[in-house]
Amino acid sequence: MPLTARIEAAIAGAVATGQGGDAPSRLSSALHYATAPGGARIRPTILTSVAMACGDDRPALTDAAAAALELIHCASLVHDDMPCFDDADTRRGKASVHRAYSEPLALLTGDSLIVMAFDTLARAAPDAPLRGIGLIRLLSTRTGMPHGICAGQGWESEARIDLRAYHRAKTGALFIAATQMGALAAGEEPEPWEELGARIGEAFQVADDLRDAVMDAGTCGKPVGQDDLHGRPNAVAELGVEGAIARLEDILGGAIASIPSCPGEAALAALVRRYADKLVPLTQTAQAR
Amino acid sequence: MPLTARIEAAIAGAVATGQGGDAPSRLSSALHYATAPGGARIRPTILTSVAMACGDDRPALTDAAAAALELIHCASLVHDDMPCFDDADTRRGKASVHRAYSEPLALLTGDSLIVMAFDTLARAAPDAPLRGIGLIRLLSTRTGMPHGICAGQGWESEARIDLRAYHRAKTGALFIAATQMGALAAGEEPEPWEELGARIGEAFQVADDLRDAVMDAGTCGKPVGQDDLHGRPNAVAELGVEGAIARLEDILGGAIASIPSCPGEAALAALVRRYADKLVPLTQTAQAR
Repeated sequence: MPLTARIEAAIAGAVATGQGGDAPSRLSSALHYATAPGGARIRPTILTSVAMACGDDRPALTDAAAAALELIHCASLVHDDMPCFDDADTRRGKASVHRAYSEPLALLTGDSLIVMAFDTLARAAPDAPLRGIGLIRLLSTRTGMPHGICAGQGWESEARIDLRAYHRAKTGALFIAATQMGALAAGEEPEPWEELGARIGEAFQVADDLRDAVMDAGTCGKPVGQDDLHGRPNAVAELGVEGAIARLEDILGGAIASIPSCPGEAALAALVRRYADKLVPLTQTAQAR
Repeated sequence: MPLTARIEAAIAGAVATGQGGDAPSRLSSALHYATAPGGARIRPTILTSVAMACGDDRPALTDAAAAALELIHCASLVHDDMPCFDDADTRRGKASVHRAYSEPLALLTGDSLIVMAFDTLARAAPDAPLRGIGLIRLLSTRTGMPHGICAGQGWESEARIDLRAYHRAKTGALFIAATQMGALAAGEEPEPWEELGARIGEAFQVADDLRDAVMDAGTCGKPVGQDDLHGRPNAVAELGVEGAIARLEDILGGAIASIPSCPGEAALAALVRRYADKLVPLTQTAQAR
């Protein structure tokens, strides 16, 4: 099965577990709406690619980990779009969940997706219990407090923000989860994989800051200028456009260099390189302005 | 250690895992605020009491389960109080989290507590992996979609509501989790314990409906009349005050009769009876009006 089809099947299978004939139908519908069609599925793609580079000897566990990670990401998008955060009307080119369904249902959709993520991992865990439990802990650590994406969002309510700590928790955390969970799903120690995830996360945050600063809403599929609007810190404000582009290229080189030795090391380096190339048109757009 | 001290220590220990010197301080503070001082801690008390009735041979796992269940309950209170649901200014006699901190921090507090609940169970799980994984599944099943408290809240966004399905998911789910998780934490099969949890949940829902209908806000510690205000179904509207009281007494008798055979069966029956007696002044208040 091609990688994208494998990941979509894993996510769809997880979301199906939240459905039932006697479940409230609008919330059921909102769970589908919030998770499909998805975006680039970058996090589960990285996770699955790392697992495959490490041998992928428990593919059902890899699939559960990939789906769980994407569910957490989707939950964070639903909650971040709500009026008390970004108040975003659109997401992935369609109405945001609270606009399409309602604020109560958006809140419940995010909550349900978080729960579903852990349920998905626990369903797959009995075949390899200690790996499964470890995967749950990696995901919870990178999602909640004090160092996960909840902490990252929480920094926006502080009077003084450390830019690197903020980005590392808000965006980096789920990329670290991606590389570490991929390794552990395949039975490898997760620790050596933290740096790769952290660097990929940094690269995407800088790219996102550049996109937010210079692209228009039609290209991006969501409202832009949000960081500036909310007075949030970002790399462009800190370094300027050219400085941010230089940092982006530096980070991606470091990411490839950090890949631990494993059977699929070369293929994984090629994957990161492909993602890096996708970011280049963006940086060219930025330089043209 | 007395039962209440044991449960408070377990909850405080779990909440402490969400803190850290480099964590955003206001969200850290909100996690404490949302979880202590607590209410009656009824769900973790039932859970721990069932585990003790079944031998409690893994007390650390019981404590993790009790804390995790209470964290989910606290998360649901924080999110339910938010403006898009009950818009409640007070909870447990103090300002609700979104009033004391802000809406963004209330949303993140609920999310963080949900994640912390699963993290707490996963931390304790390696000593008895299959029990730990089973506990995570019991909690996720009774929290998320299609049959947990998220589903219960989701029913409020439906045009047509089944009153019993609604109450069973919204309130009953976490009582079923309490009895089943208590049994499994002590190594017993959870299935025979579902009925006890379901009946306790029904009793508390009917008692809550009576309280909501007839008591004043000062006694209750939170705004009353909310069900009527939001047009939500409840037992008093369906059966009248006297009919609801008769149902309450009927349910509690059935709860005690349903307790599976176990070493601590008599003590557990006495506990349920004590809770039942606490509900009597409430029903007398109702009858006096």
